[in-house]
Amino acid sequence: MAKQVNLNADMGECFGAYKIGNDEALLDIIGSASIACGFHAGDPNTMHNIVVRAKEKGVSIGVHPGFNDLWGFGRRRIDMSNRDLEYMIAYQIGALQGMAAYAGTKVTHLKPHGALNNMAAEDIEIALAVGRAMKTVDRSIIYVALAGSEMEAAAVKLELPLAREGFCDRLYDDDGNLTSRKIQGAVLHDPEEIKNRVVHMVLHEEIVSRNGKHLPRKIDSLCVHGDEPTAVVAARAVRQGLVAAGVQVLPLTEMKLG
Amino acid sequence: MAKQVNLNADMGECFGAYKIGNDEALLDIIGSASIACGFHAGDPNTMHNIVVRAKEKGVSIGVHPGFNDLWGFGRRRIDMSNRDLEYMIAYQIGALQGMAAYAGTKVTHLKPHGALNNMAAEDIEIALAVGRAMKTVDRSIIYVALAGSEMEAAAVKLELPLAREGFCDRLYDDDGNLTSRKIQGAVLHDPEEIKNRVVHMVLHEEIVSRNGKHLPRKIDSLCVHGDEPTAVVAARAVRQGLVAAGVQVLPLTEMKLG
Amino acid sequence: MAKQVNLNADMGECFGAYKIGNDEALLDIIGSASIACGFHAGDPNTMHNIVVRAKEKGVSIGVHPGFNDLWGFGRRRIDMSNRDLEYMIAYQIGALQGMAAYAGTKVTHLKPHGALNNMAAEDIEIALAVGRAMKTVDRSIIYVALAGSEMEAAAVKLELPLAREGFCDRLYDDDGNLTSRKIQGAVLHDPEEIKNRVVHMVLHEEIVSRNGKHLPRKIDSLCVHGDEPTAVVAARAVRQGLVAAGVQVLPLTEMKLG
Amino acid sequence: MAKQVNLNADMGECFGAYKIGNDEALLDIIGSASIACGFHAGDPNTMHNIVVRAKEKGVSIGVHPGFNDLWGFGRRRIDMSNRDLEYMIAYQIGALQGMAAYAGTKVTHLKPHGALNNMAAEDIEIALAVGRAMKTVDRSIIYVALAGSEMEAAAVKLELPLAREGFCDRLYDDDGNLTSRKIQGAVLHDPEEIKNRVVHMVLHEEIVSRNGKHLPRKIDSLCVHGDEPTAVVAARAVRQGLVAAGVQVLPLTEMKLG
Repeated sequence: MAKQVNLNADMGECFGAYKIGNDEALLDIIGSASIACGFHAGDPNTMHNIVVRAKEKGVSIGVHPGFNDLWGFGRRRIDMSNRDLEYMIAYQIGALQGMAAYAGTKVTHLKPHGALNNMAAEDIEIALAVGRAMKTVDRSIIYVALAGSEMEAAAVKLELPLAREGFCDRLYDDDGNLTSRKIQGAVLHDPEEIKNRVVHMVLHEEIVSRNGKHLPRKIDSLCVHGDEPTAVVAARAVRQGLVAAGVQVLPLTEMKLG
Repeated sequence: MAKQVNLNADMGECFGAYKIGNDEALLDIIGSASIACGFHAGDPNTMHNIVVRAKEKGVSIGVHPGFNDLWGFGRRRIDMSNRDLEYMIAYQIGALQGMAAYAGTKVTHLKPHGALNNMAAEDIEIALAVGRAMKTVDRSIIYVALAGSEMEAAAVKLELPLAREGFCDRLYDDDGNLTSRKIQGAVLHDPEEIKNRVVHMVLHEEIVSRNGKHLPRKIDSLCVHGDEPTAVVAARAVRQGLVAAGVQVLPLTEMKLG
Repeated sequence: MAKQVNLNADMGECFGAYKIGNDEALLDIIGSASIACGFHAGDPNTMHNIVVRAKEKGVSIGVHPGFNDLWGFGRRRIDMSNRDLEYMIAYQIGALQGMAAYAGTKVTHLKPHGALNNMAAEDIEIALAVGRAMKTVDRSIIYVALAGSEMEAAAVKLELPLAREGFCDRLYDDDGNLTSRKIQGAVLHDPEEIKNRVVHMVLHEEIVSRNGKHLPRKIDSLCVHGDEPTAVVAARAVRQGLVAAGVQVLPLTEMKLG
Repeated sequence: MAKQVNLNADMGECFGAYKIGNDEALLDIIGSASIACGFHAGDPNTMHNIVVRAKEKGVSIGVHPGFNDLWGFGRRRIDMSNRDLEYMIAYQIGALQGMAAYAGTKVTHLKPHGALNNMAAEDIEIALAVGRAMKTVDRSIIYVALAGSEMEAAAVKLELPLAREGFCDRLYDDDGNLTSRKIQGAVLHDPEEIKNRVVHMVLHEEIVSRNGKHLPRKIDSLCVHGDEPTAVVAARAVRQGLVAAGVQVLPLTEMKLG
């Protein structure tokens, strides 16, 4: 049977007069869009536009909740209580559901943004708070969780639909964690190299660490970026490489998830 | 058959460490709570708390959307485009639906806040923008509209469930508009006087203007306040007066609406 | 004696991760930068960067206060009380003074942004509120006021240093007001045409209305833009045209103002 | 020679319609007010009001900068870079200077708020970032620093005027740190007990730890609170106790510091 994989990207991160990202180009590449909900980025107009365009393009949509820190673009850790965080996530899920209902479509996954994603990957309590918000508002929402992270553990524990996420343009350490950006070469830029790594990752269900260690890892969804022109080129190469290798590139909603 | 009327109040208008209003006292008096959604007031915690308490008390809940102006508490007019406004309302509906789903309950009405309410009452385009947001996100939501205002007209035109709203503690002009607050005595404070006016309004389905003119007006929902201790006393007197007069005081969800 | 004129531009309107405008290019063209202060745009980092760069380039700096509406980029009218508005302006002046002191330089002018500028141009009470804030915090700050507007009247009444502002890329009506953007052709785009109009305006101290009427008007400062690549080209053409015509293009601080 | 001490309190922490604290009562008790600057709390109106009242009461004023987190009231740690933090402090100093200039008075001290204060007390790099902002904007501003903390070290290193701060209503550990609020009894409530401890602290220039250890410690300024009615009672008792013991209770600006 053909391998399947999803490509996801963060989208709708504009705010008012401020534009960021390359949403239109990415919509032709990805299967699922994670949409900012007005806390770290995004506003109702931006959300509406991306929800409508995603629907037109057959791209499934998800919540991309972040800290309430537009100034820091959600990249700064904030030490909220887990209860506060849980309600904050529930609020953002609801807000996107409102915009989705407005456009006649449905929210089907969630992936935390920036510092919140990093904190949830490391801290099971935070990962569970995110998961409880999802489960309580709509238990059918797919938890997009960094493969091997505490988010994956939280999704399993809460019996939420789970998509294990991998990164196209990042090196991995031998223990399966992402190599710190502070390490020279941790972020890849060459589209050909990125494509080859990703195709291997999906076909062989393993990640090769930067030291050459083979780590078995089933990846359901690959994160691509659109912040720079080169990022879009790499994302396109990834898709083409996967298709050429016979991999089905699907929205999360059409995947068989574990 | 017994007359019916609803009592509604604005609630959940705290923000973080800041407390305002008298929600607990009002929950024993009103049938329906209009809940701030994080724009002019309110935050996810506050929303969660009031949704849970309203459910426990059998009080139905509604969206109380306002301008994105916490500093001005939503009392300052902002000249947004009607499209922006419509999405902004959809967002706030969704956000409260998320918090309601979290608590296992449902959003059943909408009443705009402050400057937005005033603008929608006067301007059919704004009233329609509010109504379209409601209709598109969930067409069963009841539009709580100042009786005789453009909001009422918008609800009728969009075929939305409609509750015509009256004010307990305000004088009316001969044309049925509220007497400006700038006019001496426009706001009533005496609980006995307020109670008597309201009971007359409901039993006789008419408003008596400040000049003594009798204006036929079927009121479905009466707005009470909790900002000051005297407001709660007046609200309680209104409820007791209505019950003593044989009027059923109901949540909006149990009313027979036109 | 040689004619003098100032070129000013709005700058520092980025916010966190969001970039807007073309500040670096404009710094080589203009004499004075009006810097956003964190309400409609701008953040402390952005303010610091532009203050430092302006100092290095010999460009004088001014406050560019706006409404507290990042989402609307200060382009939406908000009906604040004039007292609130006056304190809000004082706050923004102080904030930029803090950043200027940090960089060892000084705030020397003020020009309101967007909707606030439009409202102050039309309404003497708002124009006076802006002027009182300036006068009370630092009476040496130059009021950059649309020539012929209520802001000019307010500056005169409050005896504040005044720079009368003209627009390079806009048509004027016969009464000296800017032609509404809704009129076809009201905004000019051709750098050559813009340059020629501006040189005429400065050399002859008159504005030619779109119907050909000659309006005597002494302009001290011309507003240029950097939002689009073509705007920078036009701004550069304006400067070159003025210099070629023997006009001194100066910072506001070096101008002889009325 | 008579002992001297300052009493300081956090003030101006209202926001728009939201009221908090007991500023009027405290102004009769304290010598110096630390004023919120619109980030964790406060708005231009609130700032104006408290600056004017402090001036009338002979109370000196200072900056009370906090994180940009109104929702969390500045009590949540945010991991900003130290450069960002430094500019953010400079901005808040300037903003209050603007409001002070408006009222014809002057900013003379700075004390960080909430989580920022805690972080600066523990982390020399953060304490230095705060200090550099002060020094660069106005080197005469007094750094109110928890006695024995990294803030004190930063003030000494940067050669800033320094006021060592003590707490009236908190127990101390043997190492001179505040006993964690999580420990039973760490926060004192009895006005008589609080008064006696403070008078001893000032007269004997020592703190007695909760285990009875005597720690030499010269305190220049004592922090009092106004959040609860009992806090004001305790603050008043402290002042009366100090005066009765012959201690001069002074604004920071009249103290012999460092």
